[in-house]
Amino acid sequence: MKKTITFEPDSTTIRVDKGANLLEGALAAGVHVNATCGGQGVCGKCRVLIEAGEVDSEKTEKMDQEEYDAGWRQACKTAIISDCTVKIPAESRGLKRPVVQELDMGQAERQISDLDTKPMAVGWSLDPMAIKLSVELTPPTLKDNVSDLSRLSDGLKQQHHIEDLAVDLSCVKSMPEVLRKSDWSVTATLMADPAQESLLSSEERSRPLRLVRIEEGDTSGQNLAVALDVGTTTISAQLVDLKAGKVMAEHAEYNGQIKYGADVITRIVFAQKGAGAETLQAVVVSSINQVIDELLEQSGSSKSSISCIVSAGNTTMTHLLLGMETRYIREAPYVPAANFIPLVWASDVGIDVPDCVGLCSFPAVASYVGGDIVSGILGSGVFQKEELTLYIDIGTNGEIVLGNRDWLACAACSMGPAFEGGGIQHGMRADLGAIEGFHVNPVTLEPMVITVGRERPRGICGSGLISVLAELLSACVIDRNGKFVRNLSSDRIRQGRFGYEYVLAWAEDSGAEHDIVINEVDIENLVRAKGALFAGCLTLLESLDLSFDDLDRVIIAGAFGRYINLEKGKQIGLFPDMPVEKFHFLGNGSLLGSRLVCLSKGMLHEVERIASMMTNIELSDNQSFMDKYMGALFLPHTDARFFPHVSEYLEANSQMIQDERKS
Amino acid sequence: MKKTITFEPDSTTIRVDKGANLLEGALAAGVHVNATCGGQGVCGKCRVLIEAGEVDSEKTEKMDQEEYDAGWRQACKTAIISDCTVKIPAESRGLKRPVVQELDMGQAERQISDLDTKPMAVGWSLDPMAIKLSVELTPPTLKDNVSDLSRLSDGLKQQHHIEDLAVDLSCVKSMPEVLRKSDWSVTATLMADPAQESLLSSEERSRPLRLVRIEEGDTSGQNLAVALDVGTTTISAQLVDLKAGKVMAEHAEYNGQIKYGADVITRIVFAQKGAGAETLQAVVVSSINQVIDELLEQSGSSKSSISCIVSAGNTTMTHLLLGMETRYIREAPYVPAANFIPLVWASDVGIDVPDCVGLCSFPAVASYVGGDIVSGILGSGVFQKEELTLYIDIGTNGEIVLGNRDWLACAACSMGPAFEGGGIQHGMRADLGAIEGFHVNPVTLEPMVITVGRERPRGICGSGLISVLAELLSACVIDRNGKFVRNLSSDRIRQGRFGYEYVLAWAEDSGAEHDIVINEVDIENLVRAKGALFAGCLTLLESLDLSFDDLDRVIIAGAFGRYINLEKGKQIGLFPDMPVEKFHFLGNGSLLGSRLVCLSKGMLHEVERIASMMTNIELSDNQSFMDKYMGALFLPHTDARFFPHVSEYLEANSQMIQDERKS
Repeated sequence: MKKTITFEPDSTTIRVDKGANLLEGALAAGVHVNATCGGQGVCGKCRVLIEAGEVDSEKTEKMDQEEYDAGWRQACKTAIISDCTVKIPAESRGLKRPVVQELDMGQAERQISDLDTKPMAVGWSLDPMAIKLSVELTPPTLKDNVSDLSRLSDGLKQQHHIEDLAVDLSCVKSMPEVLRKSDWSVTATLMADPAQESLLSSEERSRPLRLVRIEEGDTSGQNLAVALDVGTTTISAQLVDLKAGKVMAEHAEYNGQIKYGADVITRIVFAQKGAGAETLQAVVVSSINQVIDELLEQSGSSKSSISCIVSAGNTTMTHLLLGMETRYIREAPYVPAANFIPLVWASDVGIDVPDCVGLCSFPAVASYVGGDIVSGILGSGVFQKEELTLYIDIGTNGEIVLGNRDWLACAACSMGPAFEGGGIQHGMRADLGAIEGFHVNPVTLEPMVITVGRERPRGICGSGLISVLAELLSACVIDRNGKFVRNLSSDRIRQGRFGYEYVLAWAEDSGAEHDIVINEVDIENLVRAKGALFAGCLTLLESLDLSFDDLDRVIIAGAFGRYINLEKGKQIGLFPDMPVEKFHFLGNGSLLGSRLVCLSKGMLHEVERIASMMTNIELSDNQSFMDKYMGALFLPHTDARFFPHVSEYLEANSQMIQDERKS
Repeated sequence: MKKTITFEPDSTTIRVDKGANLLEGALAAGVHVNATCGGQGVCGKCRVLIEAGEVDSEKTEKMDQEEYDAGWRQACKTAIISDCTVKIPAESRGLKRPVVQELDMGQAERQISDLDTKPMAVGWSLDPMAIKLSVELTPPTLKDNVSDLSRLSDGLKQQHHIEDLAVDLSCVKSMPEVLRKSDWSVTATLMADPAQESLLSSEERSRPLRLVRIEEGDTSGQNLAVALDVGTTTISAQLVDLKAGKVMAEHAEYNGQIKYGADVITRIVFAQKGAGAETLQAVVVSSINQVIDELLEQSGSSKSSISCIVSAGNTTMTHLLLGMETRYIREAPYVPAANFIPLVWASDVGIDVPDCVGLCSFPAVASYVGGDIVSGILGSGVFQKEELTLYIDIGTNGEIVLGNRDWLACAACSMGPAFEGGGIQHGMRADLGAIEGFHVNPVTLEPMVITVGRERPRGICGSGLISVLAELLSACVIDRNGKFVRNLSSDRIRQGRFGYEYVLAWAEDSGAEHDIVINEVDIENLVRAKGALFAGCLTLLESLDLSFDDLDRVIIAGAFGRYINLEKGKQIGLFPDMPVEKFHFLGNGSLLGSRLVCLSKGMLHEVERIASMMTNIELSDNQSFMDKYMGALFLPHTDARFFPHVSEYLEANSQMIQDERKS
């Protein structure tokens, strides 16, 4: 049930779900309301007057009874019940903005991405990577004393029509005891074997199933998979119920490797020192174990219910996880050890799951175009559509794919961990207390800060950084070089340890013990990251004699995908200046593809086809890319023709602000 | 070049190779010559007079010049150069015997079996289990920077037409360094994967090759396999050159497990105690490692040249080697964990070979009909012939197969390790100094003893035991119950620690520090073993409404196969009383089949077909078998009708001896 909020005096409106938070509604509508505690209700600055309509809002100690009776409320503590008219007081008011997008604020607690995100790929059916089949066997007699394995195979053939079966020794070893303890009523886990036969053979063959495990009784109802996205900065995962075909839990943690280097290059350098590779493997495995433990706890599931793990990661992450040499990924001509990765046992790698859980890794295309991007292309269905699509995965590596169902080209550029909160003074992952929404009043320079979970701000997450950068730019707080405008008078702008900085939240309003700031070095990092991505897109397009105008669609993927404000992304030059209707946000595309393969093993054929058909355009040592990168180190870009609408808006806005500031 | 020896005064003749040993010639001709030091030349008893022809024989200190000049020689030190006439002196002479068989004595030093034994199976070609392919790759460039694995796969495809390839992680891990250190000139080892897809699928499919190893440079000339026969008592092995298709070395050692029990039953009992199974696994692996080390030393080969191991063993041995549960093999209804065994890495089991060496195990038929018998049936070609064949594998387990190309039935009985020298007071394997040939002078009771290598006797091997038992029986030294005839006067027959015993060699003539004897308990063990085998054959035949007369062929396999004297085997009731031309000696059939699979991976289809088509007749708890067994505990059998020719011969012989002894 949508309700309309009308913000006065500018009569800006936005439609939100009933129960939506008023401060978040204002943020989404582009209406500035001073708010520095992230939505926790302690700074008391987000006072608004409810002129009409019904809201649900408790009286806080920041407001006296008289004001409350007069209709004043704290926006951050106010839920919308009916259509409302809300007056923003003068001290909060900013410049009038156009409504940007309708906000879906239905969920009480935000997740990093939605559990119900559907793959955009079509043509798949529930046909899981691992199946569990319950079989009732006749106990052996002297007249029928075939081996335990034969008895089980025969049972699977007769009761479940399984004709083609391979088996692992570990499973055979456990068989005699399990069969007898269970009184010949057992559950067999069968897994598809992705890497077998796929290396050179182009024809589609039926894949024999591997009998990997046998359990007592009927456990066929407990059949879980872990879909993994092993990122340079973040490990994201979902626990998938393979029987019901649904996601049971989702969680992300930082990749423990980040303390050994922020990006894949520094990791590879570390891996070459002494036992560096072993350390990095142990550390990422430990992070994966943490994530899995959290998934199990969230869903109240047992580890023994896990049947398989499907992992997508960039080439370096996959190599490090499996203990393969990464050195030649870094050195020209940038050659990975393998693109297609054999199935291994997760426990052999160190992942703390039962011995018989297979770890299936997405194939990579090149050293800097990994299984994560193949996974994203799978999940997004780009490879199935006629439309020409630009697929952008924003992570520590920016990975870009261009193409359609007939051809795919890709490129990758190093963005660094900035948009995941890494290498930023007060960067953080999109956990509770992360600033994800931000406005600044261009006159008072007071901020409007909204955090994940509306808790006191503890830092700034990726989508928050985009907002902060775009807002500071369009409010003329920083210039197009990313430097602070020097003649502004506000105690929020000051000289800090890393050059000039802007204080988003004072220590007393924050959830940290210090002021939360963004500084010029942070901004430089962000500019370099967005510059690399844009230059990568442009180089890839030009290498195929195409331009942004030729694109039918742009798909934005990344762990923060759903929370990026498109217009703000365009304003800083992160996304191309194209019509809003051409954009699609996918969320974590890599995780989406992993989950799809968990649920539909037939998609493995498509995975291999995608990896095989993708042409890699190498950006390292590519002079055209370097030139374009230099040109993109400006907000939004040195060449305004690439960002005509954005440039026009910023120009007009800047004029308004100058006028306002003068008055 | 064959030469004829004529032994006087009986004018018995035998044709032997030029250079053959005279004492061995006499043994083969059934001519008794006293000889108690095994052929070493130290007892001086084997004096014979060369009446005509040329021999090569040094004068020893046991003979004075006068005798030597008169033509006396020590038979054991004499080589035949031309046709000869040899007079046996009265003190040596025994009863006249018929010539039994022509002896091939061409080899200076005897092996346990011949290296050049050819499989009897037909239709195979040199198509080894593992192939090594040398590839020259183009180094990567920025324009061609596919992964190392892709580069190698492409090279294998272009240079060797390998279309279907699977790969193992361990191989991928080693790839980057090997490729670069070798300057992109490497050798890839590809192995067939026998267990994949074979479990249920009856159709023949092409098996993808597994890329298991990559080495620097061109090592394709060094491609060895180890063919293994893992017996309860003996581990036999051959080192096979897969490129040349020939055997390079052969060796056998006792299975170190024998100290934990003489047969599979006692091993299984031990395996159930504490870490018993782990101990047995470690011990058999250690024996295998010894055998492999010896093979490498014999042939001057390097361990790194080994590409694969193919192992045949009985069901219990295979289970123990791979760490599978054996308990239910022993308990009714006698169910093994698995019949078809997945390929494993030999190093995972503990075998000390490079990590990438696959261990391929022959499938079993039932708990007591193992991969060794499947291997023997493969090597012997029984499954290809129209003739009805009885295949007998004499080992600690007696395994029997009946059938032809259309059907196969099998049974197994416990013989114990007696015929491998186990559980016999002075039993030993057919190593140097093992008594393998034996006669006894029925009047003087003096022995004629020939040992492996003609060294001083250290014990009695399997073929020696058959000779000893048959000789003592036909010389009326023991009776048909296997008990010593009490009224014989010889210091060689005496009461010993285990009842009556016969001294084959006095301590001073022996290579041990004690007399070498055979006692009544030993004989009981041998009688039980041969009784079980015969009863097994008879039960199997009768269960199919057949008799010995219906058989076209009898194939005798066993580690000692080639040295068993057929007539002596019949005399004690070990082999059926059938015409000599129906018998074939195969040697170690299990090892033969293993080697065949090493050389011709296409035979794996036949292996699976054999294992699948074989019907097992369970002899445990089989009353008919028990009755037949009781009847067979007599030499040769309680029922003379089963051994008409043998009985007639023994009767006539006995009469002659009684007469001679009286005179």
